[in-house]
Amino acid sequence: MGVEIKENYIVRDYTPHDENDLICEYFVEPKKISLEKAAQKIASESGIGSWADVKTLTQKQFDALSPKVFYLSKKENIIQIAYPKELFEAGNISQILSNVAGNVLGMSDFKSIKLLDINFPSGFIRKYIGPHYGVKGIRKIMHIYERPMLSTVIKPRLGLDEKEYSKIAHDSWLGGCDFVVDDEALTSLVNNDFDKRMHYVFGVKKEVEKVTGEKKAYIPNVSAPYSEMLRRAKIVVKNGGDFVMVNVMTVGFSAIQELRKLDLRIVLYGHKTMYAALTQGSNGISMLVIAKIARLIGFDMFNIGGEVEGKRKESVIIGEEIEESVVSKDIFQHRLQEDWLDQKPIMAVCSGGIHPGKVRKLIHALGRDIIIQGGGAVHAHPGGTIAGAEAMKQAIDAEMLGLIPKIYAKSHPELAIALKEWKD
Amino acid sequence: MGVEIKENYIVRDYTPHDENDLICEYFVEPKKISLEKAAQKIASESGIGSWADVKTLTQKQFDALSPKVFYLSKKENIIQIAYPKELFEAGNISQILSNVAGNVLGMSDFKSIKLLDINFPSGFIRKYIGPHYGVKGIRKIMHIYERPMLSTVIKPRLGLDEKEYSKIAHDSWLGGCDFVVDDEALTSLVNNDFDKRMHYVFGVKKEVEKVTGEKKAYIPNVSAPYSEMLRRAKIVVKNGGDFVMVNVMTVGFSAIQELRKLDLRIVLYGHKTMYAALTQGSNGISMLVIAKIARLIGFDMFNIGGEVEGKRKESVIIGEEIEESVVSKDIFQHRLQEDWLDQKPIMAVCSGGIHPGKVRKLIHALGRDIIIQGGGAVHAHPGGTIAGAEAMKQAIDAEMLGLIPKIYAKSHPELAIALKEWKD
Repeated sequence: MGVEIKENYIVRDYTPHDENDLICEYFVEPKKISLEKAAQKIASESGIGSWADVKTLTQKQFDALSPKVFYLSKKENIIQIAYPKELFEAGNISQILSNVAGNVLGMSDFKSIKLLDINFPSGFIRKYIGPHYGVKGIRKIMHIYERPMLSTVIKPRLGLDEKEYSKIAHDSWLGGCDFVVDDEALTSLVNNDFDKRMHYVFGVKKEVEKVTGEKKAYIPNVSAPYSEMLRRAKIVVKNGGDFVMVNVMTVGFSAIQELRKLDLRIVLYGHKTMYAALTQGSNGISMLVIAKIARLIGFDMFNIGGEVEGKRKESVIIGEEIEESVVSKDIFQHRLQEDWLDQKPIMAVCSGGIHPGKVRKLIHALGRDIIIQGGGAVHAHPGGTIAGAEAMKQAIDAEMLGLIPKIYAKSHPELAIALKEWKD
Repeated sequence: MGVEIKENYIVRDYTPHDENDLICEYFVEPKKISLEKAAQKIASESGIGSWADVKTLTQKQFDALSPKVFYLSKKENIIQIAYPKELFEAGNISQILSNVAGNVLGMSDFKSIKLLDINFPSGFIRKYIGPHYGVKGIRKIMHIYERPMLSTVIKPRLGLDEKEYSKIAHDSWLGGCDFVVDDEALTSLVNNDFDKRMHYVFGVKKEVEKVTGEKKAYIPNVSAPYSEMLRRAKIVVKNGGDFVMVNVMTVGFSAIQELRKLDLRIVLYGHKTMYAALTQGSNGISMLVIAKIARLIGFDMFNIGGEVEGKRKESVIIGEEIEESVVSKDIFQHRLQEDWLDQKPIMAVCSGGIHPGKVRKLIHALGRDIIIQGGGAVHAHPGGTIAGAEAMKQAIDAEMLGLIPKIYAKSHPELAIALKEWKD
């Protein structure tokens, strides 16, 4: 006690070990200090340091638990830090984020600071329960093994009563949608009660399945305080449902881990609502980090957005992260490598302004193991919801036949109308 | 169906009703569009609109559920929106945030957008369970009715084993701290096991209580996946503990609401770690919104930071919000009014770089119903942890006696040393 600790966290020749180190990549714009000094501050604050010169730490303790800044680029404003695994509770995502995305993100020494990626030690990946179904399990439930699947969110997102809602679900399925998904803000509302909605929509689902001979799925949003969320999930199961949706950020990791652990034999779909509060702008956490946590804590499906073009290609980077077994490092996209061991791949759900004209690009960028989710494009089709669903399905069929949409549209008027209605 | 909806959300002469409207204040910097246009987009996206002209909505539904932008200031980049309460599930914070802090925060039409405050309809406030103990209950447990209370986080935050940790807790209490709190990243680690730590620290607590004749409290961090969090909370109760800490953002609202509902007869302390990812920088949610949610879902104590000077005074604004019954509107700090009805006041915990020289200002700004939390200042005092705690306690005592710290320090060497060591 009382010794003077030598604090130096920059160790450029350090080579991290996948068994021993948790690696974080940060984007940092320092305010009035050098990037080296900023890196020291981040390593200290997210490690074992304090703003004051604490007397209760020995040099031995310091050396054993000290994070190491092993990469630092002034050109890119990037640093990488290797944290000894002893600083973390492996299976406790709350603890891990408290360390690497806690106080450091609020320090006044930086103009901006963002946690871009975390590479977990393999021992950590093994500690998490992971997805139950994943891509294969979902395809088995749906009896769809080759093509991308088609989903829609009912519009208007709020305002329809249970019966009106089920009517539009009916038309969406009839037109060719495989999935109907609740909006992230549709839970149990005054004019659209959860239990009643389940009754109507699952009733309609059975009807359409009989008519079409196809498996259809409804994904109700069960996001709520935990015991109510659990009650709603059980009602879904009771109604013969196979899927539920949960808002990852507004419900929170801890309750979701519990729901996964109970293993109610339902596929878990993670919605990213409120993500922008963390991921957009100067300070925060990247969407990639949230997607990785979603895989660790056991989602089977995750909404990755629809950004597959341009410089960022965020959806592509995240799509690979959740669907590959071994994810390679991408220095341009600031993605670290990751070995997912036996954790199943999550099915990526693509959504956000998607219409038939974008389907081809989505599949080319992300492959066939995706669910393409159209909201507006399905329900705002000039021919109505059934035609809107047909047009989206036709866009997928065209791609599976190796035809460009324009050609296929010659014999499919719904697609022709959609391609005319919405351009990129 | 198929009608052309007239979308206009700007209704400047609209007067919101506390029983019917949920009000949001946003800071918005539009990109290439006017603030009016931006306001329309926000109201549409967080209301019942879609990017496409949806055919499934009637004008009647639209009018009944349409949000109203009733305040718009180009000078301040501020808009206020009144949302009809029917758009929300009153007791479901996940649903409310999905609406008002969901997609809107990620729209590409804005350079930045931040949700600054939410005023809840009174019916909503009644739906939440709220704090069990609050300020009065905590004072009763501690037998401290007049003065601000003193707390410390053990430093180094990580790295000490259970026995070393309990030794420093011992010294902190002996020196005059009322509370010892775990760091937000200290849960159950390889060299500091949760159950073992409880055994040692609660043992030491009893010893100090006997020696000093004073009630002391230990606040363990139980943040973990839900069932493990519950197990840990029960171990705290079994050890005679009265308090637990939970990381609000990294654990998540849903699991916390469940823990509160179980009513284990423990005081809930909310730590704000990872808040900066949401609250700092251009896009996001203000700390004020998170603090209000903490009161709704039932925390008894909440960490408000230590910013009481300068233009922002964030801690003061938040401190009032969680401790007053009726909170007044503050146009400069962008705080809306709120009537908290019967919801108990939360005890504010002030922390972050606090040392004896700052105690007077804290009390003047926030009043006596606060817990002053010193980490570094306690454990980095040149005389060690006991002296560090004494110095902090002396700073509180001085203020209670109406003496300025410098005068009181003449007869209290620990305080004198601290005042010399740390200047503002």
